[in-house]
Amino acid sequence: MQHIVCLDLEGTLVPEIWIAVADAANIPELRVTTREEPDYDKLMKMRIATLREHGLTIADIQKVIAGVEPLPGAKEFLDELRTLTQVVILSDTFTQFAKPVMEKLGWPTIFCNALVIDGEGFVTDYEYRVQNPKYVSVRALESTGFQVIAAGDSHNDLPMIKVAKAGFLMNAPEAIIAENPDVPAFNTYPQLMAAIKEVLTGE
Amino acid sequence: MQHIVCLDLEGTLVPEIWIAVADAANIPELRVTTREEPDYDKLMKMRIATLREHGLTIADIQKVIAGVEPLPGAKEFLDELRTLTQVVILSDTFTQFAKPVMEKLGWPTIFCNALVIDGEGFVTDYEYRVQNPKYVSVRALESTGFQVIAAGDSHNDLPMIKVAKAGFLMNAPEAIIAENPDVPAFNTYPQLMAAIKEVLTGE
Repeated sequence: MQHIVCLDLEGTLVPEIWIAVADAANIPELRVTTREEPDYDKLMKMRIATLREHGLTIADIQKVIAGVEPLPGAKEFLDELRTLTQVVILSDTFTQFAKPVMEKLGWPTIFCNALVIDGEGFVTDYEYRVQNPKYVSVRALESTGFQVIAAGDSHNDLPMIKVAKAGFLMNAPEAIIAENPDVPAFNTYPQLMAAIKEVLTGE
Repeated sequence: MQHIVCLDLEGTLVPEIWIAVADAANIPELRVTTREEPDYDKLMKMRIATLREHGLTIADIQKVIAGVEPLPGAKEFLDELRTLTQVVILSDTFTQFAKPVMEKLGWPTIFCNALVIDGEGFVTDYEYRVQNPKYVSVRALESTGFQVIAAGDSHNDLPMIKVAKAGFLMNAPEAIIAENPDVPAFNTYPQLMAAIKEVLTGE
């Protein structure tokens, strides 16, 4: 029986990247998330327009993201986990945003989306690899014979958490924890590690 | 368009692990490969019996494998590749054999098989995650929206090389190169890197 752990990125291992960009660039409009604007496509088009208005290229944004540090203990958690089992990060972020963060995490494998960048370095659009990427990725890994363990913090993680053999909430807001009483919820890496080890050893 | 590179392990990034074990433990029977015994199940049962006869536990074997170094340049190739795109190693080796080698390669993600170990530490059996694992894994990654680039050195890599969007032979024997004139064949990492970069940049 072989396992693979699918981990969310933002909120679970690193801070929310758009918030970090908003704060570092001092652009409050970029703090708007799917909580305020549930239409993700509309939200992304607004973000892209805002970046353009402020003249921010992908290189400028990557400089900001280079200052984003993993959450305290996240790198150590991931380092230990990678010695125990296979790990893939499943995220709705973009390859161009993920890169500086992946470097700090020791280049784990990440399945995420991509921004479309024009010749001048401006973000013009975004591309999903597939619809419902976290759910589809877990299913795909299962089809290769893995038992999937999933952990994440938000609504977009629930499809992978619920389809996985074992699923956990990590750093989730109270409302999500309350809506999902059947999913064990943790807010420290030692707790999450202990729960994963229980699944790995079949206890 | 997002890519993922699927790399074979033994022959492609590290030496053949069974050969290293045979030589280090001075057990010539363990040098027999699928070239001499094409029935893989029969070969594995013979290997397991030989290990038992010589009293070699999985801990003994792992000590030997800890001395196996990546092929010259393999770590540097993989380090650069992981900054450019996503990478998964697809191997027919076993998790217990892979671990010491993965540590030397910086813990890339690996999809492979597993040995069954008894309470005394002896190998008693082996488990495939799935039939035709390399082919199935490439198909699964494609189902999540990735364009797959594959590279390997031997017969068991041909299914993934042929189903991938782009496939390459790396360090392959002359016979395999001759039988597959449509597959570009390389024997240095800079050559393989250049071919992968061409696919990544769409040139």
